[in-house]
Amino acid sequence: MSDPNLLSVLRIAELVGGQVQGDASLTVSGIAPLDEATDRDLTFAADERFAARLAQSRARAALVGPAVQAPGKTLILVADVPAAVAAVLALWDKGHDLPPAGAHPSAVIDPSAKLGPDVAVGPGVVIGRDVTVGAASVLCAGVKLAAGVSLGSACCLAEGVVVRARCVIGDRVRIGPNSVIGHDGFGYFQSGGTHRRVPHIGHVVIEDDVEIGSCCCVDRAKFSATRIGAGTKLDNLVQVAHNVRIGRNCIIAAHVGIGGSVRIGDNVFLMGHAAVRDNITIGSNVQVAALSGIVSDIPDGAAVGGIPARPGRETLRIWQAQARLPDLIRRVRDLEARLASLEQPKDNL
Amino acid sequence: MSDPNLLSVLRIAELVGGQVQGDASLTVSGIAPLDEATDRDLTFAADERFAARLAQSRARAALVGPAVQAPGKTLILVADVPAAVAAVLALWDKGHDLPPAGAHPSAVIDPSAKLGPDVAVGPGVVIGRDVTVGAASVLCAGVKLAAGVSLGSACCLAEGVVVRARCVIGDRVRIGPNSVIGHDGFGYFQSGGTHRRVPHIGHVVIEDDVEIGSCCCVDRAKFSATRIGAGTKLDNLVQVAHNVRIGRNCIIAAHVGIGGSVRIGDNVFLMGHAAVRDNITIGSNVQVAALSGIVSDIPDGAAVGGIPARPGRETLRIWQAQARLPDLIRRVRDLEARLASLEQPKDNL
Amino acid sequence: MSDPNLLSVLRIAELVGGQVQGDASLTVSGIAPLDEATDRDLTFAADERFAARLAQSRARAALVGPAVQAPGKTLILVADVPAAVAAVLALWDKGHDLPPAGAHPSAVIDPSAKLGPDVAVGPGVVIGRDVTVGAASVLCAGVKLAAGVSLGSACCLAEGVVVRARCVIGDRVRIGPNSVIGHDGFGYFQSGGTHRRVPHIGHVVIEDDVEIGSCCCVDRAKFSATRIGAGTKLDNLVQVAHNVRIGRNCIIAAHVGIGGSVRIGDNVFLMGHAAVRDNITIGSNVQVAALSGIVSDIPDGAAVGGIPARPGRETLRIWQAQARLPDLIRRVRDLEARLASLEQPKDNL
Repeated sequence: MSDPNLLSVLRIAELVGGQVQGDASLTVSGIAPLDEATDRDLTFAADERFAARLAQSRARAALVGPAVQAPGKTLILVADVPAAVAAVLALWDKGHDLPPAGAHPSAVIDPSAKLGPDVAVGPGVVIGRDVTVGAASVLCAGVKLAAGVSLGSACCLAEGVVVRARCVIGDRVRIGPNSVIGHDGFGYFQSGGTHRRVPHIGHVVIEDDVEIGSCCCVDRAKFSATRIGAGTKLDNLVQVAHNVRIGRNCIIAAHVGIGGSVRIGDNVFLMGHAAVRDNITIGSNVQVAALSGIVSDIPDGAAVGGIPARPGRETLRIWQAQARLPDLIRRVRDLEARLASLEQPKDNL
Repeated sequence: MSDPNLLSVLRIAELVGGQVQGDASLTVSGIAPLDEATDRDLTFAADERFAARLAQSRARAALVGPAVQAPGKTLILVADVPAAVAAVLALWDKGHDLPPAGAHPSAVIDPSAKLGPDVAVGPGVVIGRDVTVGAASVLCAGVKLAAGVSLGSACCLAEGVVVRARCVIGDRVRIGPNSVIGHDGFGYFQSGGTHRRVPHIGHVVIEDDVEIGSCCCVDRAKFSATRIGAGTKLDNLVQVAHNVRIGRNCIIAAHVGIGGSVRIGDNVFLMGHAAVRDNITIGSNVQVAALSGIVSDIPDGAAVGGIPARPGRETLRIWQAQARLPDLIRRVRDLEARLASLEQPKDNL
Repeated sequence: MSDPNLLSVLRIAELVGGQVQGDASLTVSGIAPLDEATDRDLTFAADERFAARLAQSRARAALVGPAVQAPGKTLILVADVPAAVAAVLALWDKGHDLPPAGAHPSAVIDPSAKLGPDVAVGPGVVIGRDVTVGAASVLCAGVKLAAGVSLGSACCLAEGVVVRARCVIGDRVRIGPNSVIGHDGFGYFQSGGTHRRVPHIGHVVIEDDVEIGSCCCVDRAKFSATRIGAGTKLDNLVQVAHNVRIGRNCIIAAHVGIGGSVRIGDNVFLMGHAAVRDNITIGSNVQVAALSGIVSDIPDGAAVGGIPARPGRETLRIWQAQARLPDLIRRVRDLEARLASLEQPKDNL
């Protein structure tokens, strides 16, 4: 019986628009990195730096960028290796066991909700009053959409996602399991020695093509909206506080925390565990290192890091200098002693 | 048709106990910050520092503190602007689409559970043996209360909250979606090269008026109770380990982690991503900066920051000095060269 | 009526294999630390350092290690106090209100799923196509197992746990409420100024005896598997990215984030909020301090800390030196002035 996963190098090359060097009839049944590939896998090497490891890989075929040589291997030359790898991965992607179009009988759907064609509603899903869901969106088991939520088309909300009242989500948005959109922001005022909650009458707007990981929290706004711009991606366990506005095509890594009313431009990259203080403005095309603490505004194009965050080059110099600090203290002590000795009056001669 | 959201300045002034300067018959349909307000919004300015931005705001009416002037605007003078803003926000608060009093037919409620009057039980809620729920508490869709849980009155547990066995929660407690109360603490002992779990026979006590955000984790105690004091507020993604005791009216920001058996006094403010090592004692009225690491006890009234945390002023001085460290190394090298030159014997003259 | 919790010191000593000094007929009804115990509790003291606090404890009986003296107390001498405490805690452990064997009628179980004997399926559980669950495993309320998941025997998945398609979980694995296993990794490639998702066709393998806390996220692999080795324990809110491989018997504290394709050996201890950059290799028997940032490979047996992480002793010296940095700047300025004064020509005499 033939393996349904078997694909020829020729067919893969056609798919990715690549050029074959070697045996185009060779077949592979999967794709794996250089060091993990078996002789039945396709592997990949983005550029010449990987040539030695490609030569040693057990794979017999590889997707390669221009100028990568590998005698004895069958190569598929492509201009953009990451894009080609993604396209090839999709060939073997078995997906996530999403519910089929239609509503599972255990779902609880308010009669006023409007579901577009081919919407899939999994077991235990709860859909409140006046919710709208666009065509072909998928709500996995246990998703809860509260009253007035508007969800676009071709979205995929994974198991256990909660979207609270009146939040607005665009098209092709993906949200990972157990993430929470639209809970109250963390806003209190002091009154008689106690903290009293500020009502949060705003909501959350998530634009098209946003993707959010697992166990993220995006709080609703005190006024108007907390907003995540089109194409922005959040990893897991990310905190987005009330009234934050994030631009387009940002990348926000796991455990990042963004304080209330922060403004972030487009194409910003916040690495893991970075924390941004309330009311800060971060420009576009900014890179923020992991574990940084942003306590002042960051201009467009800056690369910053450290606690408090400084320009990345400066932070690197400080980090390097820190390692020499204990020695420096010793050297200063030594200088002080030698200088004191020079300063001693020598007129007793 | 009249806009049901329209309210006169007069009515708002009466609500907040304020004094009107200007046109008390002016109507507004919302409230927004200075820079976001339209001419149909009420805005607000706490003190004179905001006078210039108030003058430029499109809002025609504002809640203001004493001594704020704004020619041409209608003002409502109040003593406490944040309290007045919160009261006004409540006017337009559409709420969270909570389930109505009574139990949704899809809820699974053990017959031994005792639910007070006007308790609301949403779809898919699970209530175990011997649970008690006080009057008018709300359990949103998918809440799970395990056996023996005691929940007070007027609480609101959002979608997906899990409270494990025998935890005790007071009155007016609010818990955000997908937070977890009472899972086992992280306690192991070594035995034959493996980690063996220590049973956690304690529980969690959450006192009155505590509010907890989304995706928080409060672990049950090994012995007796993990305790969160009355009026304390937790933001999202906060970790409270086993046997922690937090006092009253604390504010604990997102991503804070509190290690096992930590003691925290009253009115403590832990900012984002702060981490507190096991067994530490933090006094009352302490402020802990974001991204700090607390590795020793902190006395009452201290303001600390840094890794490891030090008094805040000291940490600020260190941060400022760090920026000069690379230059300092150069200066010491220069001093050493000049001093060596002075030390050279000059008797060859 | 006799208290069912009452146990004699003799019976406890037999259970833990200890030797009684004092009144073996004394009864206790609980166990508590030295400072919290009442006269009805057993307490414990691992070694002589706790002798003074034991003398002052209200407890009349104690589990003690060799050479601990406490005149007037009844003692149970044991070789391993933590193990004995764990065994005694288990005596009073009332457990977690787990569902009984069998499937709750509200569970949604695909007919193709294979459940072993004595499997317990709680309310609202969802089990997809071709899932297998081993004997005596427990799925608490609201657990969701997607298609093709394989779960071993004697596992316990707490309320709200999500395991996505085709993940493989061993025996005796415990996962805390609302944790997420097997969502897509955070992998994108740039294309035309936008981020495009890389399909993640791998899965997650969790080996035997792993324990995972609440609200953790373990992402599925891009290729092959993300793997957590046997006996490893994760606290709450931990992030494990795609293609990570963690060895055996590691301890990973709350808020730790582990970047993509990181390799971690055996017996590694990552303390709270530590962050590990993508593609790093950490050896075995490594200790990583809280709030550290790992940006380069760490050899076997190292103890590291700081941002960026350095050997622990070096980091401690830097931390101590930092406190002296502001003073050091002043001292260097003083040296410069004094040296300049010495360098002045004095030949005008």
